[in-house]
Amino acid sequence: MTTPSDTLDRLAALIASRRGGDPEKSYVARLLSNAPDAFLKKIGEEATELVMAAKDGVPERVVAETADLWFHCLVMLEHFGLGPAEVLAELERRIGTSGIEEKALRKAIDRESAERKR
Amino acid sequence: MTTPSDTLDRLAALIASRRGGDPEKSYVARLLSNAPDAFLKKIGEEATELVMAAKDGVPERVVAETADLWFHCLVMLEHFGLGPAEVLAELERRIGTSGIEEKALRKAIDRESAERKR
Amino acid sequence: MTTPSDTLDRLAALIASRRGGDPEKSYVARLLSNAPDAFLKKIGEEATELVMAAKDGVPERVVAETADLWFHCLVMLEHFGLGPAEVLAELERRIGTSGIEEKALRKAIDRESAERKR
Amino acid sequence: MTTPSDTLDRLAALIASRRGGDPEKSYVARLLSNAPDAFLKKIGEEATELVMAAKDGVPERVVAETADLWFHCLVMLEHFGLGPAEVLAELERRIGTSGIEEKALRKAIDRESAERKR
Repeated sequence: MTTPSDTLDRLAALIASRRGGDPEKSYVARLLSNAPDAFLKKIGEEATELVMAAKDGVPERVVAETADLWFHCLVMLEHFGLGPAEVLAELERRIGTSGIEEKALRKAIDRESAERKR
Repeated sequence: MTTPSDTLDRLAALIASRRGGDPEKSYVARLLSNAPDAFLKKIGEEATELVMAAKDGVPERVVAETADLWFHCLVMLEHFGLGPAEVLAELERRIGTSGIEEKALRKAIDRESAERKR
Repeated sequence: MTTPSDTLDRLAALIASRRGGDPEKSYVARLLSNAPDAFLKKIGEEATELVMAAKDGVPERVVAETADLWFHCLVMLEHFGLGPAEVLAELERRIGTSGIEEKALRKAIDRESAERKR
Repeated sequence: MTTPSDTLDRLAALIASRRGGDPEKSYVARLLSNAPDAFLKKIGEEATELVMAAKDGVPERVVAETADLWFHCLVMLEHFGLGPAEVLAELERRIGTSGIEEKALRKAIDRESAERKR
């Protein structure tokens, strides 16, 4: 059965297979050959488009823009010799670390309090 | 055995369990109670920090900022009653659709050509 | 003599003159006819490119990207029936309001302190 | 009489006067002492908040966020030994250069055409 993790791993493998490929024939090879600016520019663009889609409240666009954003993150990870495993391990660490949400909460409350002083 | 997919699913479940919780006690409940601006602001911030970390070329910061970015995307998905499954299905669709990379490539080449006219 | 303010005012007047124009003949008319997403997308893009140019430390690119960013802000202001005068008045108010920098400082210190708790 | 240009020039002079100041006493000195990340992070944040304010269509917030964005751009320019004059000269150049809007238009049309191929 195909599990979600397969998707990220297989997509990362597909991206890795494009490394060193012909920039005239592969979009990913093109992004990697113009690293890091080409994919960072796309990450900034897709994040902005995601914010706009979410403000519009259109679920299908939210999903499509999130997929675009994550896809270009995977290309960036490949550039650094990294993959989804490292990001998921970091997220796993946060689930596992007891007390981590309390710290983020404390931080958010302090920060909102700071913002209100403006 | 814990697979990567478990991480996204379990994190999404953890986030969903915070919905309707006390904003003074849970960071996620706080983000969801100030939807959508609270988590969209974080998505914009984390995307910018990711771009800076990648320009600095520090792998650990790239991983940490990507994890931050994906985490806040999961909170946003929960707000819309969505989850990682929908994003992964969209990514899966792109892997499966033959010819999809060629289209992205064509688009990138046309666009770069357009940029050069500036 | 041409003063800097003339530039912003004349550019705003030029932008205003394009309102309702043919989107096939004027870039500004095109941005305004696809409001607000067309110019907001550009604002997100140019902000990301500015961050990258600044990280690279290339002054000419920093100036060019800032000009691009401010230009698209002027288009956005025109869409809302606003102009540079309103933004400059707001900046003027901040110069004039004694104590305003102290508040921003207090906020920044509180926030950095909050960040460190992460 | 106070003209708009005075505002940018006087604000830039105020910012320049903070250079080398005590980061515990001046917000601008604090931003400059943590250059470039401190002000670039703010530029990314303010751009995102501007996009959200514009999507909400609230003119006062649009003006306030634009002022925040331009203010942090001025701090960035000071860091590079630049000022509003350079940005305004670049904008002036664009007003003056006949044919520059046509190029931007051509580029936008080509790019939208490329986007549609997605």
